[in-house]
Amino acid sequence: MHELFNVLAPRDALQMLERHLECSPRVENVPTREALDRVLAADVRSAETLPAFARSTMDGFAVRAADTFGASEGLPAYLSLIGEVLMGQAPDLRVGVGELARIMTGGMIPRGADAVVMVEQTQEVDPTTIEVLRPVAPGEHVLQVGEDVRVGDALLPRGHSLRPQDIGGLLALGVVQVSVSARLTVAIVSGGDEIVAPEETPGPGQVRDINSYTLAALVRRMGHIPLLMGVAPDVYEDLERLAREALAQADVVIVSAGSSVSTRDMTGRVIAGLGQPGVLVHGVSLKPGKPTILAVCDGTPVFGLPGNPVSCMVTFDLFVAPTLARMSGASHGPARRTVSARVARNIASASGREDYIQVRLERRDGEWWADPVFGKSGLIYTLVRADGMLRIGLDLGGLAAGEWAEVVLF
Amino acid sequence: MHELFNVLAPRDALQMLERHLECSPRVENVPTREALDRVLAADVRSAETLPAFARSTMDGFAVRAADTFGASEGLPAYLSLIGEVLMGQAPDLRVGVGELARIMTGGMIPRGADAVVMVEQTQEVDPTTIEVLRPVAPGEHVLQVGEDVRVGDALLPRGHSLRPQDIGGLLALGVVQVSVSARLTVAIVSGGDEIVAPEETPGPGQVRDINSYTLAALVRRMGHIPLLMGVAPDVYEDLERLAREALAQADVVIVSAGSSVSTRDMTGRVIAGLGQPGVLVHGVSLKPGKPTILAVCDGTPVFGLPGNPVSCMVTFDLFVAPTLARMSGASHGPARRTVSARVARNIASASGREDYIQVRLERRDGEWWADPVFGKSGLIYTLVRADGMLRIGLDLGGLAAGEWAEVVLF
Repeated sequence: MHELFNVLAPRDALQMLERHLECSPRVENVPTREALDRVLAADVRSAETLPAFARSTMDGFAVRAADTFGASEGLPAYLSLIGEVLMGQAPDLRVGVGELARIMTGGMIPRGADAVVMVEQTQEVDPTTIEVLRPVAPGEHVLQVGEDVRVGDALLPRGHSLRPQDIGGLLALGVVQVSVSARLTVAIVSGGDEIVAPEETPGPGQVRDINSYTLAALVRRMGHIPLLMGVAPDVYEDLERLAREALAQADVVIVSAGSSVSTRDMTGRVIAGLGQPGVLVHGVSLKPGKPTILAVCDGTPVFGLPGNPVSCMVTFDLFVAPTLARMSGASHGPARRTVSARVARNIASASGREDYIQVRLERRDGEWWADPVFGKSGLIYTLVRADGMLRIGLDLGGLAAGEWAEVVLF
Repeated sequence: MHELFNVLAPRDALQMLERHLECSPRVENVPTREALDRVLAADVRSAETLPAFARSTMDGFAVRAADTFGASEGLPAYLSLIGEVLMGQAPDLRVGVGELARIMTGGMIPRGADAVVMVEQTQEVDPTTIEVLRPVAPGEHVLQVGEDVRVGDALLPRGHSLRPQDIGGLLALGVVQVSVSARLTVAIVSGGDEIVAPEETPGPGQVRDINSYTLAALVRRMGHIPLLMGVAPDVYEDLERLAREALAQADVVIVSAGSSVSTRDMTGRVIAGLGQPGVLVHGVSLKPGKPTILAVCDGTPVFGLPGNPVSCMVTFDLFVAPTLARMSGASHGPARRTVSARVARNIASASGREDYIQVRLERRDGEWWADPVFGKSGLIYTLVRADGMLRIGLDLGGLAAGEWAEVVLF
């Protein structure tokens, strides 16, 4: 049955899904201080000026720059100390010709002054007289009003994920609430007569559920909310009921059910019946991960991922992760850590197919080497033993030992 | 006063701190399914075998391999179908000579059989007779008992941070609880007469608190728990009281108080009085971040970070982040995303000092180019506008335009 569908290249398969998916993220307001890694739902512009007052960037003395022109160690300028600028207050003094005022880093430049002389370039003669040993230019060691940000400046664009310094920067301007995309709920439906919960002791022929929890952790790592819907037996009506419940509750549905052709076909039929337009892709030129199903059912993306744990993880990364990023309005895809590494041995690959090979990384002579972790399909610990995945493009026949390749880290 | 201390290279400064820090992470048990990104406090070994029974990796027929030897399309082997292996059950059939049983991917190999023929390499003659068109070797398309994991196998080492597939792998073996390092509490003490809360409207000479919230987000991003202790005025007794409260409550204390020499000296004196051995490093050959204080006070690491937001973030990354990783028992430092990029223009640097330059990254002709974001010290939006930081090593005099360098991404 699934052979009726075209097998698409991974990129084309994802584009097919994206063409049928409207993305208008739900928006919520959150306190900025709790908005780490959230995606901005609107451009943020500044309603304030930063700094709001001219500030010193050094410890020293606020002066009129002209009073220091020509000053040197041999011929210092002698200026009268009229007081000190206190931190956190507008100074109630005015620096006149021939005068200066003590100021600290961050202090507000007093009226009359237009520059700061560093304390290291001065000498105290007596409590009211300071020798200035070097000239300063107007504006030197002064942060001018608005030098950091001006009213109306674009601060951060819609789609930006907030980093620690962004939080600090927004709070500096009094932006204590931000409008962000709501976290997505991702329902995970598992299926299989052989699957039992991790807490149970499997009987003969039974195995514990792996994919539900791996998928939940992948979803959580992206900042979204997994909903474990439970495990359906390999019965059409049971899987359909669980999938419908998932569709009613979640923004995204993942069905991870079985590796046999019959359960995959059943998954395809269940998904096809959930809504319009239904199944868009059933089969991708990808190994592992060929039997992936991509669907949109009445506006909700539904993914049928292969039951093999390795395939399940590869296809989450290739299809689910970018879709979640896109639905959140994130301007970049999910942050992927990659390293360049040399392949430790020849790796064969069929042309016309993208291959993902699990590898261990080893540092040798300052270079990373990627050594494939081989294992039959269906193993989970090949994934646990690997540090990342190496991609072999559609049109490469493989990689020769010593060639450079990109490894996506887990 | 601080000039009395030696100025150390960043690496030496961190080692000085580490020599005085005993690390025995507090340990707690958590459900494995909630243990994403937690650090294992003990090696995990397997108490079970995986798979626990021989499983098929294909849809097809369980056979005795010997019965297929010599089979071909021209001369198939005719075998009698004796039944079907149901998923999740021990098959109650036994494959004898000349017999086979239908089996699906993941099904339990029945007694008598030692291999699986793929369905694609068979033809159904009648409901009880199957033609096998190719020979299979013993063990072909079968996951043997223990092929993934055996009893006693080392699964994951102490110090490993749990990834999504690790969670799946542990649950597959029934490891539903793991022993992990407790999250660390990191108290953040701010100081400065000029600092007001983000919710307040700063008066003349006042600025909103930036560093507390940036630091809190950096701590949270590492999976630890920030405790905001509040802002002390520039009065020794007030800063000391807040620092003592912090020390009593937290695993790690960060004091971020002021950029002037006098407030830095006060911070140094406060930290020195908190416990033994006290201040270990006061001044690092680093820009920005020179006036960093590293201390251990009665077993607790205490960091005095510079008040300038850029310095504060750089020194968190260089000193606090690796210390938190170490205290958690993490076998690797914090995960840092880096990219190689070419420098877009000449960058000068003083020899004998490590420089960190904020850069924007731009993709040109398939290469990343790093363009410095310059700005006076004390600005926050240079950090917001940057994508990462470029490190110029101690002994480099700078970087020439076009040279390659590593950029640590924010």
